Amino acid sequence: MRYGVEATTKQHASAITELGRRFGKRLCLAAALRAQHGHDEGHLPGTPPEAVFYPESTDEVVEAVGICAAHGMPIIPFGTGTSLEGHVAALSGGLSLDFGRMNRVLQVNAEDLDVRVEPGVTRKQLNQHLRDLGLFFPVDPGADASLGGMAATRASGTNAVRYGTMRENVLSLEAVMADGRRVRTARRARKSSAGYDLTHLLVGSEGTLGVITELTLRLYGMPEAMSSAVCSFPTLDGAVDAVIQTIQLGVPLARIELLDEVQVDAVNRYSHLELTLAPTLFLEFHGTEAAVREQAQTVGEIAADFGGGDFKWTTVQEERTRLWQARHDAAYACKALRPGSDMWPTDVCVPISRLAECIRQTRTDLDQSGLIGPIVGHVGDGNFHVVLVVDSSDTAEVDRARAFNERLVHRALSMDGTCTGEHGIGYGKLDFLVAEHGEGVSLMRDIKRALDPNNIMNPGKVLRV
Amino acid sequence: MRYGVEATTKQHASAITELGRRFGKRLCLAAALRAQHGHDEGHLPGTPPEAVFYPESTDEVVEAVGICAAHGMPIIPFGTGTSLEGHVAALSGGLSLDFGRMNRVLQVNAEDLDVRVEPGVTRKQLNQHLRDLGLFFPVDPGADASLGGMAATRASGTNAVRYGTMRENVLSLEAVMADGRRVRTARRARKSSAGYDLTHLLVGSEGTLGVITELTLRLYGMPEAMSSAVCSFPTLDGAVDAVIQTIQLGVPLARIELLDEVQVDAVNRYSHLELTLAPTLFLEFHGTEAAVREQAQTVGEIAADFGGGDFKWTTVQEERTRLWQARHDAAYACKALRPGSDMWPTDVCVPISRLAECIRQTRTDLDQSGLIGPIVGHVGDGNFHVVLVVDSSDTAEVDRARAFNERLVHRALSMDGTCTGEHGIGYGKLDFLVAEHGEGVSLMRDIKRALDPNNIMNPGKVLRV
Repeated sequence: MRYGVEATTKQHASAITELGRRFGKRLCLAAALRAQHGHDEGHLPGTPPEAVFYPESTDEVVEAVGICAAHGMPIIPFGTGTSLEGHVAALSGGLSLDFGRMNRVLQVNAEDLDVRVEPGVTRKQLNQHLRDLGLFFPVDPGADASLGGMAATRASGTNAVRYGTMRENVLSLEAVMADGRRVRTARRARKSSAGYDLTHLLVGSEGTLGVITELTLRLYGMPEAMSSAVCSFPTLDGAVDAVIQTIQLGVPLARIELLDEVQVDAVNRYSHLELTLAPTLFLEFHGTEAAVREQAQTVGEIAADFGGGDFKWTTVQEERTRLWQARHDAAYACKALRPGSDMWPTDVCVPISRLAECIRQTRTDLDQSGLIGPIVGHVGDGNFHVVLVVDSSDTAEVDRARAFNERLVHRALSMDGTCTGEHGIGYGKLDFLVAEHGEGVSLMRDIKRALDPNNIMNPGKVLRV
Repeated sequence: MRYGVEATTKQHASAITELGRRFGKRLCLAAALRAQHGHDEGHLPGTPPEAVFYPESTDEVVEAVGICAAHGMPIIPFGTGTSLEGHVAALSGGLSLDFGRMNRVLQVNAEDLDVRVEPGVTRKQLNQHLRDLGLFFPVDPGADASLGGMAATRASGTNAVRYGTMRENVLSLEAVMADGRRVRTARRARKSSAGYDLTHLLVGSEGTLGVITELTLRLYGMPEAMSSAVCSFPTLDGAVDAVIQTIQLGVPLARIELLDEVQVDAVNRYSHLELTLAPTLFLEFHGTEAAVREQAQTVGEIAADFGGGDFKWTTVQEERTRLWQARHDAAYACKALRPGSDMWPTDVCVPISRLAECIRQTRTDLDQSGLIGPIVGHVGDGNFHVVLVVDSSDTAEVDRARAFNERLVHRALSMDGTCTGEHGIGYGKLDFLVAEHGEGVSLMRDIKRALDPNNIMNPGKVLRV
């Protein structure tokens, strides 16, 4: 029972023995490593897997899944561990499949604007690889997440308003299913009407249907020109109304991010900026020199119509980088407001017509709850986060945070929105999924049972079987 | 057995009796009407359903599905009958659900750029409805198809390069499943990571998983300016290379369509144009006045680099309409080349880097086969059609057409393309789906069995169970 010491059941112990025999040192049982693999960056308690395996090829994944399946051992895919709803927690024990060694960019097809990658490639690594080709991949969640993980959680980021989320940018996947079947979900054609859309079924399935072992992603040519802008508004409504107007006019914004005054304050302190303490939009325009100038001018005029003051825009690379670095550091800026705290980022998304109302009610609720939570949003999509900074040792405060998040989700649902715009369900939002989808969840359950009858693929996530 | 005269089995007869009792005259049994409902616009033989029902609400669809399910009676959704691969043929008998009376635009959310419609609304009807609001819906297959049918076949058209296909433009669906469950696949948020993507599972499922009873679609603001352009090239390769370059540069083309010289000849004759007899691009640009001018200029320069001559562009509405009407009439122009013939439009789609090669080989194959078939393509997507005009009474010619299409599909697959870019599988491409997806088809079959265990939803389409 050399490999079985940590196993929760005899069956799992047998699986671990067999995996160890097959993969040697690449099967790791060290407690610290297992603990690290059972915990993500969210507020939920982690649960360590019984073992961690670093596959180096899809064939090895097939083998590992086969061994696990034979022994009823759960399989939990692991990218960079930057998920936020407990996605990597080994709730029923099991094997963590860490894709850190499957991190090769396999093939760039520059003419076709697509790329094949292994799932462990991170978004920054990919863009580094593409830089000299004049190409880029736009989806940019806060963390430098793995592309496999980003596909699994249907992640997005600041560029979604122009370039879409992982939903729009995954052309095809290779995956290993619970019974060891290896499937490719689509070919490289830009569009297809050939059968059920297996690609989109797996994107967002959080490892509960199959393990992603390869991705084909859409790429974009680096725009000739990029300009960024900042504009503050006297009210949240003004800022949001300016966004609505801009989007309705069809101005092809690349990014449009909202920070409330609390978030602006946090960013000013953390990133040493001197932004006006007011609801503020960060914007970015991509296109030709002329188009970028025209877009900035149009948005500047719209902003002025809604009380926006002091519309500043720039094409200077350093200024742009400083602005967006501050935006990407927004979460750290929040955390710095309260040293020693943990982050609990909420993630609702509503139709944009309801966004101002939703944020306003949420701000009021937040003030009444006595919680600390700056608001930052991908406002072009109707998606915003309250980044709660919570003292996890204070159970009363944690309860208040939980109750606040629950009210927020139900507020969004009542506005025809979703409980998660880009973080996913994990095991933190199981009940919210039911509240959102109703009978649809029974359909999801039918699919889960059909493809993973023994519930070994990341069990306990997305839905209860 | 009043309603049972045409029924293929006793069970079906009982279903028809019960449906007739419940729905009265809206259940139609007339032979001519049934024949019309069993046949689409493609080359495949039709099979009339046993009865046709015109539901007026989702509740009625639930009832009808319930009655059919209780008697094992197949259900075949029917929009406008403009599919091309036998999608509406009642291969095992059954009830045709004609959505002609569920054709209301339910709710336009102008601020959110979305609209809720019943499945029988056609694309032209929707755009007529939207005109005064300054909004439009871009997906435009040749026919004035129903939006339910377009979602079911994952249709696209000439605008896909800019605005995407039905895959990108359906935000949410309501559907009735085989067991009568009524599900809504998503809410109106622009993005969501909440659970499995049921919307995309149903888009393209061709009525084999459930019946679509409502759609929420994305809308777009009418661009400030639109300009169209025509440019001919000495070679197909030159035309396609110009397209690749344009797309790589990120020029946001709205439309880019390729016609080979045979198609240009057909269009000239049919639509009384005087285009140069050479491979030709039809283009359209959407944006601001300045952006449209800049785009046309950029593309004009690229075209010149690849031998394109005489780049003409216009913003005059009448000229634009004349050009695109000619493009939409391309299929009729083909048919007119050979009076009395039937159309057999092929539909492969390949990565754009392989497009010139694929078209060149196909042209050679076509010439050697002695078949008549102009080529027209949504070249920005890598999708092109050979519109074979065939004498259906000549079995040798039909065999040659079939063999040609088979070679074409396998050519596209060998280039990492798909057997169908936008027409779907129906019952005409079942074997091609297997050739394309391999093990993926077994996954599709698992899903089909899980959601429709008795195989009553449009049986015999997409896959063999």
